Amino acid sequence: MVQIPKQQPAQPSAALEAVSAGPVAPAGPARGAVPTSADVARLAGVSRATVSYVLNNTSAVRISEPTRRRVREAAKELGYVPHAAARSLRAGHTRIVLMPTPEVPVGPLYSGFLNELQWALSRLDYTVVQYGSVGLGGEDAARAWAELRPVAVLAPVAMGPDGIGILKRSGAKVVITLGPDPVAGTHALIMDHREVGRAAGAHLLARGHRRVGVVMPREEGLDMFALPRLAGVQESGAQVVRLPLAYEEDDAARAAAHLRELGLDAVFAYNDEYAMLLMRALQDAGADIPGEVAVIGADDLMLGRLLRPRLSTVRIDLPSGEELAGLVDRLVRDPAAAPEVRDVLVASTVPREST
Amino acid sequence: MVQIPKQQPAQPSAALEAVSAGPVAPAGPARGAVPTSADVARLAGVSRATVSYVLNNTSAVRISEPTRRRVREAAKELGYVPHAAARSLRAGHTRIVLMPTPEVPVGPLYSGFLNELQWALSRLDYTVVQYGSVGLGGEDAARAWAELRPVAVLAPVAMGPDGIGILKRSGAKVVITLGPDPVAGTHALIMDHREVGRAAGAHLLARGHRRVGVVMPREEGLDMFALPRLAGVQESGAQVVRLPLAYEEDDAARAAAHLRELGLDAVFAYNDEYAMLLMRALQDAGADIPGEVAVIGADDLMLGRLLRPRLSTVRIDLPSGEELAGLVDRLVRDPAAAPEVRDVLVASTVPREST
Repeated sequence: MVQIPKQQPAQPSAALEAVSAGPVAPAGPARGAVPTSADVARLAGVSRATVSYVLNNTSAVRISEPTRRRVREAAKELGYVPHAAARSLRAGHTRIVLMPTPEVPVGPLYSGFLNELQWALSRLDYTVVQYGSVGLGGEDAARAWAELRPVAVLAPVAMGPDGIGILKRSGAKVVITLGPDPVAGTHALIMDHREVGRAAGAHLLARGHRRVGVVMPREEGLDMFALPRLAGVQESGAQVVRLPLAYEEDDAARAAAHLRELGLDAVFAYNDEYAMLLMRALQDAGADIPGEVAVIGADDLMLGRLLRPRLSTVRIDLPSGEELAGLVDRLVRDPAAAPEVRDVLVASTVPREST
Repeated sequence: MVQIPKQQPAQPSAALEAVSAGPVAPAGPARGAVPTSADVARLAGVSRATVSYVLNNTSAVRISEPTRRRVREAAKELGYVPHAAARSLRAGHTRIVLMPTPEVPVGPLYSGFLNELQWALSRLDYTVVQYGSVGLGGEDAARAWAELRPVAVLAPVAMGPDGIGILKRSGAKVVITLGPDPVAGTHALIMDHREVGRAAGAHLLARGHRRVGVVMPREEGLDMFALPRLAGVQESGAQVVRLPLAYEEDDAARAAAHLRELGLDAVFAYNDEYAMLLMRALQDAGADIPGEVAVIGADDLMLGRLLRPRLSTVRIDLPSGEELAGLVDRLVRDPAAAPEVRDVLVASTVPREST
């Protein structure tokens, strides 16, 4: 049996590989110890570098198929897994794409979008990691994120130019912001929720409604969507009154009474779920919809079609996950590309019976 | 000015630190290069090891507060971020807790649970990473996950004992499965959805309904919840008919007609959303609820309270995120603890007007 030295030089040649490729050695890792590439090398009878070349699918070095097979079998037998961290130390970055974990419960539309994107990036061999930034400000979040050495980051606009600079200096090749505005010097997918309010406002005006209540959820964290939606309704030229509303039946009864006292003739209800809540309260109080008050939601959820009267809504289209994954991949390969800014949120009215 | 050598020995003493702690040197990293701890050391006028001790908050070495401050300021000025990978290579694992990204859209209940858990773990200084296992089988997923060297993993039961072995041999101190059954040799949080079906079945029987349709969503990925819920209704002693149902209005009209033909007197509708869909189809077809057909959902969503008749449902309680985060932390500190198996899903009926 060929005696395999415990540690092989870091740069093997094809000749060295031929010498070290002997029969399988019996030695395994100590019981309970994490198996290392040295253990795999010993068991497969090859050098550690050969193990690394085989398991990382390096094509630069010619290694015979039987040797490759022996290495893979030894790795499997020992339960050896390459260390992503070690790989990333060599490469300067990982194949990780970081996405922020939403800090508020997001609807089926946005979570479907995130899911699809995750699948599409995985198919391109990226590791998608959702990372919370709980309790951290912009730059602190950026520093925490940068520790993982992601190759690309989909960042909230709130991270700001300084945070984005931290990520880039730590090796991120691509930072794409998601939000209402671009951040100078980096790519941006603009999701402008004013479009949603503008579509709702224009629809209500076209149907002859002038005095419009706009639901503002009292739940924390929703202002980032609710404020631009409100601004959009205001821009449409309607006369606007804010209607704060918690997602509970008592507060809906109160809001329904209040909007009838004010004599409003329409409501843009933030989204379909708040619309369903408020519509029920209005109906329980005897209001005719849309005769006395028209109601429009947003998001085009199934539930709107099931209500009577059927709920008018604003449909929101986002880019497909595949499209966005392709963009990330293209920018990773061309990190010097000029900042791309894309408007990705498209809003369109779905008129039904409630307006 | 004290000249700081580029590379310091790995093990500094307090004396060495005192020597190297000179005034701030002007040198920064080359333009565009990723700043390293050597750059921070040069700027702060200390050794690299001191930089490491300060930024990792090591208490084993005494370092004066002014020195600590100088290091932190230099790191901030240069935009230096420690490399999680390098730290994990030293420690053998990271502070990462891996959770599987749900592969199907999950309802507000489960996503709220995951959100809360994420916050609670972050407060305990863990980095929570949601990781997809798209298109990977049990062991392949385990190998992909193991590359990140997580300290703890919340794993789906489908990962199996071999997958869990791979994770443990790669240094994970804790693997906790989430699912209907425990996996031998590791901790388990049992979420037994048969409880949900049992509660629904018992409620319907108590109200005199014997012939029960059970909605089976046609949407992919939901069988892992739907099958045990069905089994639970069967265990309750009711006479059960499966009702396949896609989440769309046409299929709901078809299912409603079918269940009336069969003369079923009740439906357990999988969850509140499918219940709303089917109830609307039954009402549109002129069926009296609950006179002709009783309907019960699950999840206790707000929408059930807004329907007329108000929807009976099964409320599901899961442990608080804080409680579960505490368990993870305790097990990380005591990785030799005997496997803990906890039943965490509690189901209770919320009777309203639809049954």
